[in-house]
Amino acid sequence: MNWTLATRAEKMNPSVIREILKVTERPGIISFAGGLPSPKTFPVAEFAQACAKVLRDDAQASLQYAASEGYGPLREMVAAALPWPVDAAQVLITTGSQQGLDLLAKVLIDEGSRILVETPTYLGALQAFAPMQPEVAGVQSDDEGVLIDDLSRKAPGARFLYVLPNFQNPTGRTMSEARRAALSGRAAELGLPLLEDNPYGDLWFDAPPPAPMTARHPDGCVYLGSFSKVLAPGLRLGYLVAPKALYPKLLQAKQAADLHSAGFNQRVVAEVMADGFLERHVPTIRALYKSQRDAMLAAMRQHMPADVRWNTPAGGMFLWARLPEGMDATRLLARAVAHNVAYVPGTPFYADHDDPRTLRLSFVTASADEIKTGVAALAQAIRSEPR
Amino acid sequence: MNWTLATRAEKMNPSVIREILKVTERPGIISFAGGLPSPKTFPVAEFAQACAKVLRDDAQASLQYAASEGYGPLREMVAAALPWPVDAAQVLITTGSQQGLDLLAKVLIDEGSRILVETPTYLGALQAFAPMQPEVAGVQSDDEGVLIDDLSRKAPGARFLYVLPNFQNPTGRTMSEARRAALSGRAAELGLPLLEDNPYGDLWFDAPPPAPMTARHPDGCVYLGSFSKVLAPGLRLGYLVAPKALYPKLLQAKQAADLHSAGFNQRVVAEVMADGFLERHVPTIRALYKSQRDAMLAAMRQHMPADVRWNTPAGGMFLWARLPEGMDATRLLARAVAHNVAYVPGTPFYADHDDPRTLRLSFVTASADEIKTGVAALAQAIRSEPR
Repeated sequence: MNWTLATRAEKMNPSVIREILKVTERPGIISFAGGLPSPKTFPVAEFAQACAKVLRDDAQASLQYAASEGYGPLREMVAAALPWPVDAAQVLITTGSQQGLDLLAKVLIDEGSRILVETPTYLGALQAFAPMQPEVAGVQSDDEGVLIDDLSRKAPGARFLYVLPNFQNPTGRTMSEARRAALSGRAAELGLPLLEDNPYGDLWFDAPPPAPMTARHPDGCVYLGSFSKVLAPGLRLGYLVAPKALYPKLLQAKQAADLHSAGFNQRVVAEVMADGFLERHVPTIRALYKSQRDAMLAAMRQHMPADVRWNTPAGGMFLWARLPEGMDATRLLARAVAHNVAYVPGTPFYADHDDPRTLRLSFVTASADEIKTGVAALAQAIRSEPR
Repeated sequence: MNWTLATRAEKMNPSVIREILKVTERPGIISFAGGLPSPKTFPVAEFAQACAKVLRDDAQASLQYAASEGYGPLREMVAAALPWPVDAAQVLITTGSQQGLDLLAKVLIDEGSRILVETPTYLGALQAFAPMQPEVAGVQSDDEGVLIDDLSRKAPGARFLYVLPNFQNPTGRTMSEARRAALSGRAAELGLPLLEDNPYGDLWFDAPPPAPMTARHPDGCVYLGSFSKVLAPGLRLGYLVAPKALYPKLLQAKQAADLHSAGFNQRVVAEVMADGFLERHVPTIRALYKSQRDAMLAAMRQHMPADVRWNTPAGGMFLWARLPEGMDATRLLARAVAHNVAYVPGTPFYADHDDPRTLRLSFVTASADEIKTGVAALAQAIRSEPR
């Protein structure tokens, strides 16, 4: 049988992370590899109540085909919760924010289109963009995010810059207020659209991050959000906020992709959030994740060789570390797994010019005790690795 | 701001059906336009029980990120229920079968690729394929499906033929056993892959339709199925069965599109189906839809002018009608709406060479009484339309 594949299929690859997870999910391994929220934070009782209520009061509509835009009351809640004036008509409910990236890729990327990302950037975004065959360029970045001068050099002809300013996956870094102002201003001068992805923004530890850049010029940005980190990923619900110039095409792409996101799930989430639940719930996630970050930082200070470097994320789920010169995080992984600990090497998160010494450590899936044991084991693996 | 759209965005258009539904959803209109299952068939109590059980027994896994392939037990149920030997490893759970079409488009269609469809065909498939910019050719079809000689003429260089053999949307027609045998044989000779879409196959009225063509040569076909018509569309769950040559690329496309379909929904559906529920439930849908088809056929015979033609669907949700010579179903629609009845003109379902006299009537959403009133009103509109 002549199965001729599209050329774009060659650009699709198994996720490196998925392959690593297969190796590292065997019993006895303490894994810092996954990007999984702590299941302790899932509001199970509230979901159970909401499922029962939706099926009691609104079963037929919740189980029927529905509008591609999403469930009206949920779109209004999303619009009302954002810190700039958003019309619910600009909100598109998506099947996780991953789908938002897929729709944006379809609507904005031609084969060979130049697109810009941070260095490093979210691997799932690279995977969502890849099938549309862009030329991806990484903009040089420091602890505060993309470097404005390098952005100006690389922007000509680019379709957009994709940024994840709060507690970024993979680095955990946050873009400063000054950098946001500079980036917004330069993007506006250059006419460069921004895709601003904010799945982790609510998970701050000591103070909220600066306002989204979309708030500064909403017509120049698409904003992506998610319910996965504040409620649960297993319902697959996210959203995007798009300017009027773009919304109709994203809506058409959404309709062709899966008609609409599950109406039942949308009503359950709206029901859970209706009485301001997130205002009580999210602080408990912040407190848990902060204590786990602190456990990881303490263990890193106690166990790591002096020439290992790491940052102090102000929120989110990830810490970013860098091995001593001459070491390679991909090469080290097998030894780490032999020491019963796993992580994700940094390399797959780079669009270009990867730094093979980097690695991502999640501090939210393992318990504080496991974090102590796992970090000690990782330090042991690093010490025993030939340089 | 320079929002440069991808050229494929020009190929995306608002669904004609959606636009019609907006006009026809005003109160007082009897609508035969939508493709909505009867909400009376949704097993609300079973869903409520299943939601409670999943959240009691398996909450953390059901609410967490999960494998892109889908929930193992559900994949096994799908494989076991199909009438040919299917390995669960070949089953991919999708966010509705619409997503299956989107993934297939990404993996199989290059810009300008020739693809073949029936005449007419499912509009949602045309919309899913369009963003990948194929050249779509309609294969001439009669009441039994595609004509084999025309298929042979049009097959050279084609990537696949998309077929919906059972109670097709929009025509309600079913491919005969003889035509299936001929089509399978010719496709195999030609090396032409088949995409076989079967959302309605379980909804037969007097006898089950012939076996899927995928059963004859599974390596040459992708089979698409759905839970939308036997359980409920609002959970957005479907599946595809793909040969080993294709599965890994479809899985990678799935992961990039939305990571995975909602694990909670998958467990709820598996829980509802676990004790053989569909064997008790689906016969009740068949009986209801058959009585509604009969109500529509009786009303058509009673009210329609002698030169209006229609078929007798043996299952599914749709009846296909043809207006007298000189009339146009798109033009008639405004007059029909003025008579408080709506339908979908046939034109948008044709890839090419449309027949403007055709129209699609759904007999499952309106009640039997509404069907009588609506068909009488439609006949009245036809009689008063200038020829």
